[in-house]
Amino acid sequence: MLNRLFPNLDWLQGYSRAAFGNDLIAALVVTIMLIPQGMAYAMLAGLPPQAGLYGAIVPLLLYAALGTSRTLAVGPVAVVALMTAAAAGEIATQGTPGYHLAALGIAVISGAIMLAMGLFRLGFIASFLSHPVISGFITAAGVLIAASQLRHLLGNDTRGRTLPEIVPSFFQNLGTIHLPTLVLGLVVLGFLFWSRKGLAPLLRRAGLGAGAASLLAKGALLVAVAGSTLIVWALGLDQSGVRVVGEIPRGLPDFGLPALDLGLLQLLIIPALMIAIVGYVESISIGQTLAAKRRQRLDPDRELIALGAANLGAGLSNAMPVTGGLSRSIVNFDAGAETPAAGAITALMIAVALIFLTPLLHFLPNATLAAIIVVAVASLLDFRALPRTFAYSRADGAAMAGTILVTLFIGVEEGLLAGVALSLVLFLYRTSRPHMAVIGQVAGTEHFRNIERHHVTTDPGVFSIRVDESLYFPNARALEDRILRAVAEQPELRHVVLNCVAVNFIDASALESLEEINQRLRDAGVQFHLTEVKGPVMDRLQRSHFLDELSGQVFLTQYDAMASLSPERTARCLAAPRAQSARQDTAGQGA
Amino acid sequence: MLNRLFPNLDWLQGYSRAAFGNDLIAALVVTIMLIPQGMAYAMLAGLPPQAGLYGAIVPLLLYAALGTSRTLAVGPVAVVALMTAAAAGEIATQGTPGYHLAALGIAVISGAIMLAMGLFRLGFIASFLSHPVISGFITAAGVLIAASQLRHLLGNDTRGRTLPEIVPSFFQNLGTIHLPTLVLGLVVLGFLFWSRKGLAPLLRRAGLGAGAASLLAKGALLVAVAGSTLIVWALGLDQSGVRVVGEIPRGLPDFGLPALDLGLLQLLIIPALMIAIVGYVESISIGQTLAAKRRQRLDPDRELIALGAANLGAGLSNAMPVTGGLSRSIVNFDAGAETPAAGAITALMIAVALIFLTPLLHFLPNATLAAIIVVAVASLLDFRALPRTFAYSRADGAAMAGTILVTLFIGVEEGLLAGVALSLVLFLYRTSRPHMAVIGQVAGTEHFRNIERHHVTTDPGVFSIRVDESLYFPNARALEDRILRAVAEQPELRHVVLNCVAVNFIDASALESLEEINQRLRDAGVQFHLTEVKGPVMDRLQRSHFLDELSGQVFLTQYDAMASLSPERTARCLAAPRAQSARQDTAGQGA
Repeated sequence: MLNRLFPNLDWLQGYSRAAFGNDLIAALVVTIMLIPQGMAYAMLAGLPPQAGLYGAIVPLLLYAALGTSRTLAVGPVAVVALMTAAAAGEIATQGTPGYHLAALGIAVISGAIMLAMGLFRLGFIASFLSHPVISGFITAAGVLIAASQLRHLLGNDTRGRTLPEIVPSFFQNLGTIHLPTLVLGLVVLGFLFWSRKGLAPLLRRAGLGAGAASLLAKGALLVAVAGSTLIVWALGLDQSGVRVVGEIPRGLPDFGLPALDLGLLQLLIIPALMIAIVGYVESISIGQTLAAKRRQRLDPDRELIALGAANLGAGLSNAMPVTGGLSRSIVNFDAGAETPAAGAITALMIAVALIFLTPLLHFLPNATLAAIIVVAVASLLDFRALPRTFAYSRADGAAMAGTILVTLFIGVEEGLLAGVALSLVLFLYRTSRPHMAVIGQVAGTEHFRNIERHHVTTDPGVFSIRVDESLYFPNARALEDRILRAVAEQPELRHVVLNCVAVNFIDASALESLEEINQRLRDAGVQFHLTEVKGPVMDRLQRSHFLDELSGQVFLTQYDAMASLSPERTARCLAAPRAQSARQDTAGQGA
Repeated sequence: MLNRLFPNLDWLQGYSRAAFGNDLIAALVVTIMLIPQGMAYAMLAGLPPQAGLYGAIVPLLLYAALGTSRTLAVGPVAVVALMTAAAAGEIATQGTPGYHLAALGIAVISGAIMLAMGLFRLGFIASFLSHPVISGFITAAGVLIAASQLRHLLGNDTRGRTLPEIVPSFFQNLGTIHLPTLVLGLVVLGFLFWSRKGLAPLLRRAGLGAGAASLLAKGALLVAVAGSTLIVWALGLDQSGVRVVGEIPRGLPDFGLPALDLGLLQLLIIPALMIAIVGYVESISIGQTLAAKRRQRLDPDRELIALGAANLGAGLSNAMPVTGGLSRSIVNFDAGAETPAAGAITALMIAVALIFLTPLLHFLPNATLAAIIVVAVASLLDFRALPRTFAYSRADGAAMAGTILVTLFIGVEEGLLAGVALSLVLFLYRTSRPHMAVIGQVAGTEHFRNIERHHVTTDPGVFSIRVDESLYFPNARALEDRILRAVAEQPELRHVVLNCVAVNFIDASALESLEEINQRLRDAGVQFHLTEVKGPVMDRLQRSHFLDELSGQVFLTQYDAMASLSPERTARCLAAPRAQSARQDTAGQGA
């Protein structure tokens, strides 16, 4: 029973003391990162700092129980925090109870959506997001996230959701920069950037092992937090205008269903859907990367269920929406986490911190949190992806560029939707023009090839065409157009032969198209034949009336068709000297 | 010069007196239908009757000059009229100047959209509408159209845009049925339905030829209009409450750009886009059906330009939106129209009617127009399409059912959008799970086949997989999942071979997926190889860094790959007795 509910807890059997030790160390390192990051992302989401810390308790416990990754570190992440701020900001002003309620609603609804997607195996919906769109979206989101932190780094009132709002606001507020905040912020920022590159080598030179040095370097976050807090406290900088975190309620979060009404639910459902999909895609790619390194495997549907439960848990415990995050997952993995227990231990440590350590965080300056955010998102920016993608495929490059521009200049949700719409349109454009080859017989053989690439024999009375694609609604019309053009152009035409060797599927639109082709050809006095129809396609056609109405026949092979429709010419071609040497013999030239 | 602007006027050269005679007769028959239908569809669109007649002047002249069909009859049609009413009804109340302005705006914008689609060759956008969605939409629209005419047939105030509005309104207004109107409406309705089936045989028995009888039967419309008008006038029924058309301004329409502001344009752009696409799809399918009967051909892009110009012309001449209509086009074709001149002559006849005949239409009862609408849409209803489509493909059936239900119960635009969304989701679902076959060597040959269907030899150290689909964003993740699962399940695995024989295209998402597969396999100590990559795909891959980073090799054939990666086993298998007889030798069984 327990096994069926929690099939991913198999690691519990034979959980060793050694594994526990490893999990404990990993949990400690992750906790040290998570406390400031959680508060920082809560600030980014426009929520009180505890919303980020709460997001590291219940959600982590639920993911540990239900998730299939052994090393994924779930919790607040930057992109989801930004999307939450954008969506909740549409409903109410930051800082109001309505805003907080909207954020909780987003967690609940996106959790429910993920859960439903997992239970009904709808994970494929995430494939609406093509890689170029995700990559462009994350880069653009990173730019907006960094820009949104200007306010905290400058200590003034620079605001805005998009570049056209932030840039003018930045210049208007240049006069009100708060110098102590700026200096503090820049020092922390510089220290954190340096620590990412410079600290580990330094520690190694000081005699530490490479692994330990790299782990200790993560402690830079702790140093930055403790150092800046001490400075503010010691110099009384909060009195002179450096904004600090302030009071964090001591103790564990309250539980309870947020008071959502139907109107609010309707407003939140689209943003919550987008957050669910982005969160899932981000999480599963990190999880799969890490799992593959140890030859482990994630179950995408179970991941959706686990992330859905984690977000529901977040919404019910006053926390912000969560997902699997890149940086902490890598740290968790590198620190040697072996099982989901590491996540559960992290949750307990955060709970302990909430009970005992919140007073210590009172004087933590917002500028430090902003610096932590900026350093975290810097690794998300990948500006070289755009030219690289363009070079590979202009359509993909266009989708990426569109996503980036709309996200930066119009908004986060609009950018994602524009990217999805662009991908779909470009995809349909490509699919709507399948490769079609008019084919003819290769001399001396029973083979038929593209007349544009090979010297082949055709009969002006027979039009043979091969479609190198399944027939479905985006391309149904293309075949119709091509065949009707041939009929209009070739007055001697008596037979059209459709070669289906590359057709894996025919949907209802294409079926109707075939029926219309058949009807129109009949009206024009032309017979319509099929050849090389695959078994499953034939089964399906037999369930319709198409074959009864077909004016021509279904031949097993193209050769059979031509031997029957143009016997003399086909026999002559078969007897001719083989291939290459044969001269091109097309409809216009006769013989 | 003129030839380039109007490349479709080639028929003018050598236009004979005989052809003119045929066009004239066809134009006369179409005009007789068009006068009452134009007024009826204007009523359906919530516009004054002249808006329908104006829609048969400028738009017809423009289509005659620019269109590529020789027999398509352009003008007001039922489905577009319903969609216009739905969209304009969102902006203002029927009968107000704002409503009229919105309808003109729809004509202008949808015309501009069609024009742009034609000029930029974006006609493929119409492929978003799968056949089941169109078919379901038109049936549901037909039901709503018929229901919307209840008001005119009952002479009361039954109203509503959807079934949940119309049905209760019908029952609430049962008490206020106007008997003379109902009797008149039912008589006309009965006469028109009878004339479709019963009149032509009667005329034939009276000695007319089949063709003439069928054409004369179309005159039933004229009889209904003249008869009911005379009755109303003679009995003074308009005094006792039978609603009539009333005053129609005499003369030609005014020209001028409607006073559209930016806000209105924004509100109208989505409905106008939908009307443009539905109008185009309806028109092109009728046009192609008729053209094929005479081995003529339509140019889809030029059709878009011609329909776009026609709608712009409609918007600038106070007319309702237009497109190619089914019933009048068939009549035009059957009556022997040979060239677009038939359309131009029709326009002139309508203009003459507007100048001289409008007083005669004063007493035409609305009930007659409603009966004409109901008879016209009866032919649109195809209820058997739903079970037929379901039987062929459940996904297509679901898309059709969804379209019908949402259109009937929520709204016209919502229904169309729901249908498009459903088709796309179901399409992605299908595409996101491409057919993938694990392959092994057929004994005694160099061939490799699906291990589930053939007795083949595999090597537990090598995982060979063939994807029977191009690799693009909807299915990029599926391959990743499948390969990672194999790696997790087969601890002895050292090589993964991806057979690309069926891959026609790799987009940027799939490329990134391949890069991730390569990276993850490398992390797991497994090499990644490709075989049978097609030329164009290889060209594109060479533009990326993928081949540089590939941990394995690109082999020409699957046999080359296996001969290199598993030389002993492959040689032994090649030497073994050929095919069928060989026993299955899979990873688990060794040997």
